[in-house]
Amino acid sequence: MPKEFKIAKGVKDWYGEDAILRNEIKDTLRRVFERYGYNPIETPMIERSETIKFKGGQEIKKEIFTLKDQGRRELALRFDQTLPLARFVASNKDVKFPFKRYVIGEVFRDGPTQPEQGRYRVFTQCDVDILGVKDMIAEAELLALAADVFKELGLGNIIIKINNRKLLDGILDYAGVPSSKKIKTIIILDKMDKIGIEGVKKEIKSLLPKNTVDKLISAITKAKNNDGTYKKLTEIISSKNSKQGLNEIKQLLDYSNGLKFVEFDPSLARGLDYYTGTTIEVFLKDRSVVRSAVLAGGRFDNMIGTFSGGKQEIPAVGFSFGLERIAMILKDIKKDIKSSNTELYLIPINTAKECLKIARSLRNQGLNIDMELKGKRMGQAITYAVSLGIPYVGIIGEDELKEDSITIKNLKTREQKKIRINNVYKYLKAK
Amino acid sequence: MPKEFKIAKGVKDWYGEDAILRNEIKDTLRRVFERYGYNPIETPMIERSETIKFKGGQEIKKEIFTLKDQGRRELALRFDQTLPLARFVASNKDVKFPFKRYVIGEVFRDGPTQPEQGRYRVFTQCDVDILGVKDMIAEAELLALAADVFKELGLGNIIIKINNRKLLDGILDYAGVPSSKKIKTIIILDKMDKIGIEGVKKEIKSLLPKNTVDKLISAITKAKNNDGTYKKLTEIISSKNSKQGLNEIKQLLDYSNGLKFVEFDPSLARGLDYYTGTTIEVFLKDRSVVRSAVLAGGRFDNMIGTFSGGKQEIPAVGFSFGLERIAMILKDIKKDIKSSNTELYLIPINTAKECLKIARSLRNQGLNIDMELKGKRMGQAITYAVSLGIPYVGIIGEDELKEDSITIKNLKTREQKKIRINNVYKYLKAK
Repeated sequence: MPKEFKIAKGVKDWYGEDAILRNEIKDTLRRVFERYGYNPIETPMIERSETIKFKGGQEIKKEIFTLKDQGRRELALRFDQTLPLARFVASNKDVKFPFKRYVIGEVFRDGPTQPEQGRYRVFTQCDVDILGVKDMIAEAELLALAADVFKELGLGNIIIKINNRKLLDGILDYAGVPSSKKIKTIIILDKMDKIGIEGVKKEIKSLLPKNTVDKLISAITKAKNNDGTYKKLTEIISSKNSKQGLNEIKQLLDYSNGLKFVEFDPSLARGLDYYTGTTIEVFLKDRSVVRSAVLAGGRFDNMIGTFSGGKQEIPAVGFSFGLERIAMILKDIKKDIKSSNTELYLIPINTAKECLKIARSLRNQGLNIDMELKGKRMGQAITYAVSLGIPYVGIIGEDELKEDSITIKNLKTREQKKIRINNVYKYLKAK
Repeated sequence: MPKEFKIAKGVKDWYGEDAILRNEIKDTLRRVFERYGYNPIETPMIERSETIKFKGGQEIKKEIFTLKDQGRRELALRFDQTLPLARFVASNKDVKFPFKRYVIGEVFRDGPTQPEQGRYRVFTQCDVDILGVKDMIAEAELLALAADVFKELGLGNIIIKINNRKLLDGILDYAGVPSSKKIKTIIILDKMDKIGIEGVKKEIKSLLPKNTVDKLISAITKAKNNDGTYKKLTEIISSKNSKQGLNEIKQLLDYSNGLKFVEFDPSLARGLDYYTGTTIEVFLKDRSVVRSAVLAGGRFDNMIGTFSGGKQEIPAVGFSFGLERIAMILKDIKKDIKSSNTELYLIPINTAKECLKIARSLRNQGLNIDMELKGKRMGQAITYAVSLGIPYVGIIGEDELKEDSITIKNLKTREQKKIRINNVYKYLKAK
């Protein structure tokens, strides 16, 4: 095959059961998002390059795909859904707050790919965000939403870990981490899950003096072993800001007391610099399926306002569901993934013209019907239906036509039965 | 507002009723596509530049957005869904024929935009194609599908015009149009709808000698005035190929005799060079809504095979629905477009914590519920719900809590009623 007809590097075609599963996940996300009062928006995949490069470190900037139009304008493909949201709010003065929107769409990163982790250069981010609410009630609603999403996906057995950036900041202050090194420290702490506490210690040592590292690790360990009274934590933190962080955690736990699986974890870091308060990560309880977080998000009260001219703070909190990640997990654990949406495959025996009409009338009843179009013989036609994963074939010959019937064969059990056309819908849906 | 926070040129944000309408249209298309036995595929928006530039004239090549990755590989954004389909089939040897797939996704063109025509630089093409079937039964199935799509969109009053490229070729031969000028002639004929027969005549005169133009126009007029016997046409055409084209038309009309609105139009041209047989255009009967075609497609038996090494012909026929176009038409004629998916907006009066729980239980019943999160006063909260287009608000104060009830107010009729929480679902769904 000539090289030019290969797929590009780092991207993927989705078809068969993968494509059907992706649609099912997107449908579930949309359904739950809309139940929680979020409405859809779609922003374009192409933005002005200045918009996309406005925030984010050098690392992420290297991964931005840039392009030019015929007018030599500098453009870029979006690499997340948050910058476009900020640009949307800044350029639409009729947005009403609270603004609750969801978006499901592709983003682009010119970086290393890890197919076994569901990481590609083009991937789908499904974001929900609430803009304009400072109170922890926004977080509480999002935690309930996350619980419902995973329940409806069949992944109900989760732990939601929460922390607060202000509180973590107080712990860093206590340990003596200078402001200039806080973000780098947080990025290392965020790896706790992957490299363990010893790995974290080792990495931080290249950044901070030994006594600071020791104080930091012991403070985090102390904070983690809290007995529900937060006594140890209150001894550590001192600034007004960090106390505010602790209050927010308490408030959020209070709002969420119906959700058993919400857990305060003062070591939770999230390696992004724009979080200002709550940080959230969701894990499957059974870590053997996937070790790292299946969902992550948090509060970013400064970013949207900066885009809107900085005159006004626009508090914001939200989540980003990674479609490829969720699909990979579900494919791993689900046993009944469909490889075709078709319910019945009609095989006409010299009755093609009549069969077209019968197919249409069954389709108009709401059944997914395919039919043999190439004049294949019965055996071949059945082999084809089996290879696509269609559960039933329906044979329509002269006899069936006379009797207004279809001979329906279950391709799993091989059971065969002549069914009146009027009863086909009921027969298939009863299965 | 600084320039960098503006949207890029030629693209658009979709939100409010636009975004909801787009989702509804996509859902309808998917539903009908799946009823006809099409399964989804998703190919990446980024392809190798050689793939995207393999077919298509200079005009379209100018409109391709190109980019490079960090490895200096030449990439391009797809400008249609057909080239990626050809690449997909060429690079996936396990594709089973007939291969019936649908795809709904964005394509990119760096060309002039016409927002009033629904034409943007990033737009959504919804394609259905059947690969591997030479018989007109494939076309017949597609025409029935088109009829069902428009019926379910509420645009059932349509005319489907069909023609055949082989037949048109025979007419061009009869008029004496040289092979080298056939495609250019067809591109001008395709404008008949826009510029009328006089406009077409004028344009063709710059391409062909006067006697050829006269013969061509009179042949097309003759062919159009056919009395159902195709007698006039048979007198004009002479090659085996064009007779085959006429036979295909007859066959397709025979297969489609249940569809009243299918009409043979020998002047139908379709200005694309890759069509080899049937060409199809769908129009609304009421041309005051939109003059030009709402759907177009046809048969392209040579293209896919070329990609797959050219050893084997892979017949193909399909359609492309333009999402922006359909949305524009529906927005114009529909009166009941929702601007929010939310069914009920809860307003807690000092009951936020309890309200969160009530909201979640209503959501778990399948209702789309939003709630007041900013501590707004009643009046303000109602104004907000009205501005979003939410039909009901539900007030939850101490009294309502005691009685397990919600005071539900219809924001249109201003009717207000206290409803037991258990009955809220029934109450709202009965409306």
